[in-house]
Amino acid sequence: MVQIEGKCKEVLDKTEWIAIVTCGDSGPHLVATWGGYVKALKTENSGIIVIPAGFYNITENNLKKNNQVELLAASSKVQGTNGPGQGCSISGKGEIQTSGKLADMVKSKFSWARGALVITVEHFNTQL
Amino acid sequence: MVQIEGKCKEVLDKTEWIAIVTCGDSGPHLVATWGGYVKALKTENSGIIVIPAGFYNITENNLKKNNQVELLAASSKVQGTNGPGQGCSISGKGEIQTSGKLADMVKSKFSWARGALVITVEHFNTQL
Repeated sequence: MVQIEGKCKEVLDKTEWIAIVTCGDSGPHLVATWGGYVKALKTENSGIIVIPAGFYNITENNLKKNNQVELLAASSKVQGTNGPGQGCSISGKGEIQTSGKLADMVKSKFSWARGALVITVEHFNTQL
Repeated sequence: MVQIEGKCKEVLDKTEWIAIVTCGDSGPHLVATWGGYVKALKTENSGIIVIPAGFYNITENNLKKNNQVELLAASSKVQGTNGPGQGCSISGKGEIQTSGKLADMVKSKFSWARGALVITVEHFNTQL
């Protein structure tokens, strides 16, 4: 597990939405969440990203066979190397948890959620 | 080719950034572009999306073996079915063009670009 810090932390805090990709038999599957949801679910451990799971059924099936997941976030409000705007890619292992502490936290904040998509961060990189 | 219209057109016009995923031997590869870039490169044909290509080297290699590409865009400023916020997923065929009409158009607007990532839209769907 790696703690997200620096520019990537800033991008995650300011991104409007986050792209989430998993791999299945028929290729990559791309879904998303709102940045505000992830901010509301932040824990003291910045090595874990908690995302409310409403549907995410294909994502869940993909993760059962291959738990590798990639995220991408971006914000024009964060300074990049050569100008305004920065992106952050994050890779790690993902799992949908429908019970337990994190799932309960998600359900208490988002009544429509069936659980938590929990991502354990392995690598993160700025894009620009 | 399918023309993008309705809510998806609105999301594409208002999204801050767009996620782009291709498939390679080592799994999915996720990159992005700014929504403003795609707006600046809009043609009369809404069945084609033109994106300025700076690097995108892994994306280009992936597309040579498997030209299937997926995009995701989202904006909290577009109304969804049950509240504010809508996303749009787009799938199609992608190609990096470093010469020709579209590449020239990209280079004339973005001096840093080496060409155009041109996506021919096959399907599009709202997310929420």
